[in-house]
Amino acid sequence: MLRLLFSSRPGAFAGYEAALAEALAEAGLDAEVREDWPAEEVDYILYAPVGRLRDFTPFTRAKAVLSLWAGVEHVVDNPTLHLPLARMVDDGLERGMVEYVAAHVLRHHVGLDAHVVNPAHDWAPRLPKLARERRVTILGLGALGRACAEALAGFGFDVTGWSRRPKTVAGIRCLSGPEGLAAALEGAEILVTLLPLTQATESLVDADALARLAPGAILLNPGRGALIDEEALLAALDSGQLSHATLDVFRKEPLRKDHPFWQHPQVTVTPHIAAETRPRTAARVIAENIRRHEAGEPLLHLVDRAAGY
Amino acid sequence: MLRLLFSSRPGAFAGYEAALAEALAEAGLDAEVREDWPAEEVDYILYAPVGRLRDFTPFTRAKAVLSLWAGVEHVVDNPTLHLPLARMVDDGLERGMVEYVAAHVLRHHVGLDAHVVNPAHDWAPRLPKLARERRVTILGLGALGRACAEALAGFGFDVTGWSRRPKTVAGIRCLSGPEGLAAALEGAEILVTLLPLTQATESLVDADALARLAPGAILLNPGRGALIDEEALLAALDSGQLSHATLDVFRKEPLRKDHPFWQHPQVTVTPHIAAETRPRTAARVIAENIRRHEAGEPLLHLVDRAAGY
Repeated sequence: MLRLLFSSRPGAFAGYEAALAEALAEAGLDAEVREDWPAEEVDYILYAPVGRLRDFTPFTRAKAVLSLWAGVEHVVDNPTLHLPLARMVDDGLERGMVEYVAAHVLRHHVGLDAHVVNPAHDWAPRLPKLARERRVTILGLGALGRACAEALAGFGFDVTGWSRRPKTVAGIRCLSGPEGLAAALEGAEILVTLLPLTQATESLVDADALARLAPGAILLNPGRGALIDEEALLAALDSGQLSHATLDVFRKEPLRKDHPFWQHPQVTVTPHIAAETRPRTAARVIAENIRRHEAGEPLLHLVDRAAGY
Repeated sequence: MLRLLFSSRPGAFAGYEAALAEALAEAGLDAEVREDWPAEEVDYILYAPVGRLRDFTPFTRAKAVLSLWAGVEHVVDNPTLHLPLARMVDDGLERGMVEYVAAHVLRHHVGLDAHVVNPAHDWAPRLPKLARERRVTILGLGALGRACAEALAGFGFDVTGWSRRPKTVAGIRCLSGPEGLAAALEGAEILVTLLPLTQATESLVDADALARLAPGAILLNPGRGALIDEEALLAALDSGQLSHATLDVFRKEPLRKDHPFWQHPQVTVTPHIAAETRPRTAARVIAENIRRHEAGEPLLHLVDRAAGY
């Protein structure tokens, strides 16, 4: 029997227990998931960096760490980790992200807030432009960025995608590298940041980047909080260079009550809900990866430790 | 030279003049559009039912009435009208409708309002279900209803469409007739009304219809105001059977300042912007129809006067 250790925040296991049992049985695996296996008996570690586990040294027979999260920046450079590490690429998570991004892009595109909050009861028809006339740029063309780019292009938006290394996505203007970044930002009306957090992307969205966007642009950050230079963002909102920022992720979460983002009339805070793992679909990914490893097949979504994602 | 009469609300011509001149020239037509041709000299009437023109009798040589609006219920039973009448089916109007409907369906689907309006600054992650788990029903599968159904299904929603006569749309559960209507309403979580207004559809969404929806359902009406029984709608909101209504069209517009819809916390009013004709794209439709009629080809989007649309 395989012993699987579940290590996440207190209480998280309750949401996963039944889904994991079902998915493991469906995959034909004889396995038991617990939060308290002795370290030296554990075969696989199901991991989110919000539990107590920081030192992987005692897990002498473990075969792999399977991340419950898409983002692995809190574990990838852990010096005690010498096991293969797989990211979570959950269909439910991906669809949730696409739905979050599409909802907020369309919200800003059609100017929805002016109707949701209209205390003066103004009847003031203003016709938004069409999606095909709206320039949306997505930074990051990983699984999530690509899925969002495709969904928005399918809606008719004029979509540009940027990634560090060259990529090709049908229907999207794909740019890459430092020069491509400047071109991707130039004149963008809605900017969506879906990059992994690495040394190269920390504070990538700074004053220079924001200045390249179309005047009155919108920032939508469902990626990682530290991609954004917060001071530069607030300055761009106050100068009018940005008209709104909708932020789902922050350098420190939950966002503290006295943070200026809560007070700012042109900032919408959402509580890290865009890329939440759905236990039912995530459990199937975990089970399939264990099945593969046990069968000698390569792990899906293996992290490139040097690149950091 | 063809003489085209433009008859709409005062001031509307300014938004159309250049677009019409350009589209008519592109179609190779020698034509002049004015608001003040003598009636007996007019060849075609470009018409919206918000101008002064009510009596079509004096237009003795006119060949057709080309509606600037998609909805023709205010002209279709005009007893002085014996000319062919064509509806507006404008690609820009259709895309605008799809974008409006998608924006509001996604808004309600992801529970966006709770973040846009969050005065207590609550950090309260609540994971919305996925689109594939959300039942959306669209009443009306004309050009607009069908385009919305396809866009929402493309996004993953579980979409049912209903029309009076049987229709087939790939990826949509299509129902028709009175029995189909009950089945289409049953358990729907988001109801979108895109029917033409006829004697058969007036107040179609009444207390019985609303009671069939899933508890806490959402109503989105970008079609015609009189499709909805207003008293029944308010009662369903107050009982909790509906959790929200987003309404773009009303029995009388602009919606009067003291109408209960403005005050109701679970109603969002938008000022008839979902299906607004875009002059640039609409002008091409007008020009193409005149070219066709002059060439002896059948008019596009000809209204069936008996059916009423």
